[in-house]
Amino acid sequence: MTSEKRKVEVCFSPALFEDFKNESAIVVIVDILRATSAIVTAFMNGVRRIIPVATLDEAMTYKKQGFMVAAERDGLVRDFADFGNSPYNFRRDVIEGQDIVYSTTNGTQSIMMAKDCYRILIGSYLNISALAGYIAGEKRDLIILCAGWKNKFNLEDTLFAGALAREVIARGNHATVCDSTYASIDLWNLAKDDLLEYIDKAAQRHRLKKNNLDDVIGYCHTMNLTTIIPVLEKDYLVILN
Amino acid sequence: MTSEKRKVEVCFSPALFEDFKNESAIVVIVDILRATSAIVTAFMNGVRRIIPVATLDEAMTYKKQGFMVAAERDGLVRDFADFGNSPYNFRRDVIEGQDIVYSTTNGTQSIMMAKDCYRILIGSYLNISALAGYIAGEKRDLIILCAGWKNKFNLEDTLFAGALAREVIARGNHATVCDSTYASIDLWNLAKDDLLEYIDKAAQRHRLKKNNLDDVIGYCHTMNLTTIIPVLEKDYLVILN
Repeated sequence: MTSEKRKVEVCFSPALFEDFKNESAIVVIVDILRATSAIVTAFMNGVRRIIPVATLDEAMTYKKQGFMVAAERDGLVRDFADFGNSPYNFRRDVIEGQDIVYSTTNGTQSIMMAKDCYRILIGSYLNISALAGYIAGEKRDLIILCAGWKNKFNLEDTLFAGALAREVIARGNHATVCDSTYASIDLWNLAKDDLLEYIDKAAQRHRLKKNNLDDVIGYCHTMNLTTIIPVLEKDYLVILN
Repeated sequence: MTSEKRKVEVCFSPALFEDFKNESAIVVIVDILRATSAIVTAFMNGVRRIIPVATLDEAMTYKKQGFMVAAERDGLVRDFADFGNSPYNFRRDVIEGQDIVYSTTNGTQSIMMAKDCYRILIGSYLNISALAGYIAGEKRDLIILCAGWKNKFNLEDTLFAGALAREVIARGNHATVCDSTYASIDLWNLAKDDLLEYIDKAAQRHRLKKNNLDDVIGYCHTMNLTTIIPVLEKDYLVILN
């Protein structure tokens, strides 16, 4: 790594993030199945703001104030909420121009955890190249924070981390000396030619299948449907200008 | 996974172990460069007991009581200690029949952390097949705990975890549905034909090289030099009968 290059690191779990923290870094939050794919979709479909909250109690408080609320735990929509965590819930006719409060098992906690860093972006395959282009231009250290599953490592977030790291590094301003970045890139290279077949063994795919929620897996692994990048501004997400 | 099979899980960092804990499981501690390779070597060379301690203060207290002490931090031997963390330090003429107190940056903390589990074993390439055979026969859940580097994921421990998981599963009594186990096995399959070339990119290799301590890397990746399995008994390690 030449000294002027910025570094790329991958953090496999929110429980490890403390040891990565770097307030001048850009952090990309990744929860491919399904929170960050759903958030990008919501902005594609015209949502105005998304307010991520870590707990169901906070989501419920917002609901009582009249907000539209998306909330799930363990893949299942909570009964007080308007809808859950499927990107298919965030339809233009329902959400256009709205502010939505959002709480999920893993994804929204990761967003809150990173909030003291320089910039928090939402990553998914749907916006991967726009994201890589923006990050390469910013010339700051990059931390890719995988939301995982209840603090455990997961394959689908790791593969995306590898794909993004590779694309950012290929643009020439970044490099890595981080073992988790190497592992992510190697797993991505192994999986990329038949991504859905590889994902077939991931635990989260089986969890979704059990609840008949696996209809979104193909969609969540579709590349570059948009150039929109959601960014955290104060306490809510908006589209990065 | 058929229901009668026992499960294999890989934990990439001591900081994630809390979510894996299973008091009826066998835990294999892995710190390939260099603590667990050194511990296996010490037993090959006739050490009687190894007393793992988490802190340097504890190690120093034992030293004052007349114990032989091995202690390092960040790869470097501590000046009050008799020697550090290189397997080459644990020579038969120095250690045969002795009890040694041992404290390292990552490895010994992991041992202490797992101590409420059913059985704590020390894993390395030097004893990998003996270990796999023993575990397959015990028919208990297996957690492979990678010591990592200061709570971060590392490649060399992960590759070993993949090698061991694969060998245990091949013996027929175990299976996995754990994403970190799949990732470890895939990385092992990718690396195994030229393990040392793959390890060349690992951060720990560069740390050791910087301190001229990388002479042990080939040795620490040598398979099946012994059938000895160190096991934690009360507060010290001995040879498993």
